Amino acid sequence: MTWVTGAQGSPYGVHHLPYGVFRRDGAEPRVGVRVGDLVLDLAGAEAAGLVLAAGTLGRPTLNQFMSLGRPQWLAVRQRVTELLTDPTHRADVEPLLVPLDEVRMALPFEVADYVDFYSSEHHATNVGQIFRPGQPPLLPNWRHLPIGYHGRAGTVVVSGTPVVRPQGQRATPDGPVHGPSVRLDIEAEVGFVVGVPSPLGSRVAAADLADHVFGVVLVNDWSARDIQAWEYQPLGPFLGKSFATSVSAWVTPLDALAHAFVPAPAQDPPVADYLRDTPHLGLDLRLAVTWNGELVSEPPFAGMYWTPAQQLAHLTANGASLRTGDLYASGTVSGPERDQVGSFLELTWGGAEPVRVGGAERTFLADGDTVTITATAPGPDGTTVALGEVTGTILPAR
Amino acid sequence: MTWVTGAQGSPYGVHHLPYGVFRRDGAEPRVGVRVGDLVLDLAGAEAAGLVLAAGTLGRPTLNQFMSLGRPQWLAVRQRVTELLTDPTHRADVEPLLVPLDEVRMALPFEVADYVDFYSSEHHATNVGQIFRPGQPPLLPNWRHLPIGYHGRAGTVVVSGTPVVRPQGQRATPDGPVHGPSVRLDIEAEVGFVVGVPSPLGSRVAAADLADHVFGVVLVNDWSARDIQAWEYQPLGPFLGKSFATSVSAWVTPLDALAHAFVPAPAQDPPVADYLRDTPHLGLDLRLAVTWNGELVSEPPFAGMYWTPAQQLAHLTANGASLRTGDLYASGTVSGPERDQVGSFLELTWGGAEPVRVGGAERTFLADGDTVTITATAPGPDGTTVALGEVTGTILPAR
Repeated sequence: MTWVTGAQGSPYGVHHLPYGVFRRDGAEPRVGVRVGDLVLDLAGAEAAGLVLAAGTLGRPTLNQFMSLGRPQWLAVRQRVTELLTDPTHRADVEPLLVPLDEVRMALPFEVADYVDFYSSEHHATNVGQIFRPGQPPLLPNWRHLPIGYHGRAGTVVVSGTPVVRPQGQRATPDGPVHGPSVRLDIEAEVGFVVGVPSPLGSRVAAADLADHVFGVVLVNDWSARDIQAWEYQPLGPFLGKSFATSVSAWVTPLDALAHAFVPAPAQDPPVADYLRDTPHLGLDLRLAVTWNGELVSEPPFAGMYWTPAQQLAHLTANGASLRTGDLYASGTVSGPERDQVGSFLELTWGGAEPVRVGGAERTFLADGDTVTITATAPGPDGTTVALGEVTGTILPAR
Repeated sequence: MTWVTGAQGSPYGVHHLPYGVFRRDGAEPRVGVRVGDLVLDLAGAEAAGLVLAAGTLGRPTLNQFMSLGRPQWLAVRQRVTELLTDPTHRADVEPLLVPLDEVRMALPFEVADYVDFYSSEHHATNVGQIFRPGQPPLLPNWRHLPIGYHGRAGTVVVSGTPVVRPQGQRATPDGPVHGPSVRLDIEAEVGFVVGVPSPLGSRVAAADLADHVFGVVLVNDWSARDIQAWEYQPLGPFLGKSFATSVSAWVTPLDALAHAFVPAPAQDPPVADYLRDTPHLGLDLRLAVTWNGELVSEPPFAGMYWTPAQQLAHLTANGASLRTGDLYASGTVSGPERDQVGSFLELTWGGAEPVRVGGAERTFLADGDTVTITATAPGPDGTTVALGEVTGTILPAR
């Protein structure tokens, strides 16, 4: 039971406590934690001796704090919970609470490497059917390993950052032309943020997920389908993705999602030993995609074929090191139904089946469109955890 | 004419002056410049007031110095040249010269994003013939844009770092198996290091190469061909490359290569406007690949189809920002002849045509093998510039 006004019963109650980096007018960015519609200034709390975190909370990113490791994450989480529930702390803590509408949120962590997986069987199947009709939609490798690739870390932006429509080459019947993308799309994904690094030449076991992954963000992996389709053979997506990837401003600690782990879909054929996670658990995150304020899809993350633990084990199976700030995203989250898909490519079946949004027939993104992705998950005792939203508005090409 | 003993006539004379980060026993890493077989301690020179660089030379990476921009790069280069040629500076500067064999070199810059291109027509054609016999070796997009993808920045290591043989999945007639790679290969490449960033949503013109690119390194993009072949469809290389990418310890300033620019091969069909570089210039770098000390190939960089300026323009054509420390590599450098190829895949034609190394028939890399890539380029007045070597030895899988 928190003494913070309005926080009890909120999906941002003391059972959640996501971290972010905020800025007030004229002040440097610093670490905060969200409670209800307020931000607890953790840098101020650490400076006042209310929280101990090795001086990491006054920094402009979460990276130093995330590098401390899980015992410290748990200690700070427990201490913040005490501060926000024990009324004897109220006089000290209340001056450190800032209304959300008085702050601006920054990118919460400096992204080291950004990896994007492709782990929804429904998404991979849909894309296969759309792009390679008449052929087996899943490629032979898909059920043997979590397919993934590296994206551009430097263009990961915080929720709310406008997205300039990219220019690029696309194929036409008369040959390639260069210009603004005409098939600009979204990909609704869930991202995992690495706190604790691992050395080069070693591997991280699936069982060690919670020792390395600090938390979870929502991701919109904006995708220019026309640019992507022309460029991606044989080395994969490049400029069709690298213009912007949006992440939520709030990082939900993995420990706040303890009640959201659920059995993941059975895998057939059996996976290689290094990919075995026992128990084999996914996360019951229920995503919602709104297009100009209209709900168009509700992708279920619980149905993902490859789990976050398997993705982590795969990512390091060749001895690749992890760094604090590494971000790996799930790939587009799509369920079996048309109103559960995580991209407009699927929602409109390659643009062939428009949907009605704002009273008009729509396929891909128009300038001025806004897309917002939210998600909820079960918390303890019947509570709900709401992941921070990720939103962005399309600006015209320059 | 330098007063530094042994430096006159060296390919590391005062016409070259590559930058690196070095460490002496017990001391912190700091910026130095190579002259002959000595390192000039630039951090010490800056501390002594002999060089002005805004305090950037005492840092453990080149990033802060590289971010200052070309006018500062040129000013420091000119000042260092003065210090090493004007005998009146000898008494001040000589104590700051350290023999190379008394230092250890560190990774010279913190890598922001790492992009790998695929810009040798001979390489792309060879790979196409080996992997897709009977089909057109170049895909339809290849002559329209410089194909590229993002690699793992966190596993870029400095020359001399041992490379642990990666584990991974590979296809066999009985299905995929997991284990140490059995087709471990090299890729001899040239890398370009970005100093000056660009904002998100804007583009960098090909003509602005020298304002953004600080210098050049040699790159060995170690590649596990068996892992790569199984994983790369449809999203490109991932674990087959991400275990290690080696770069030379010395960064040759682009301004030291002014005499190495030569007309690049004509391009047909004509390229899109944003890819037009006038004049259309490549770099006359002559690479040499040695395998356990035996010269096996001499790839000519001057024949690359896509130029560094075009690669930079393409990389940012969609509005992707540049950061200080971005590294983009050319892709494997291969010439038209078998003894000019930049990978063992090509040298042994997919492993089907072994070569003799150390008296034995060899195809891919064995544990204990060492590969070293060097390169020279024409300097002013008949001098030669030798790029810093990139070398690595294979350790057994763990």
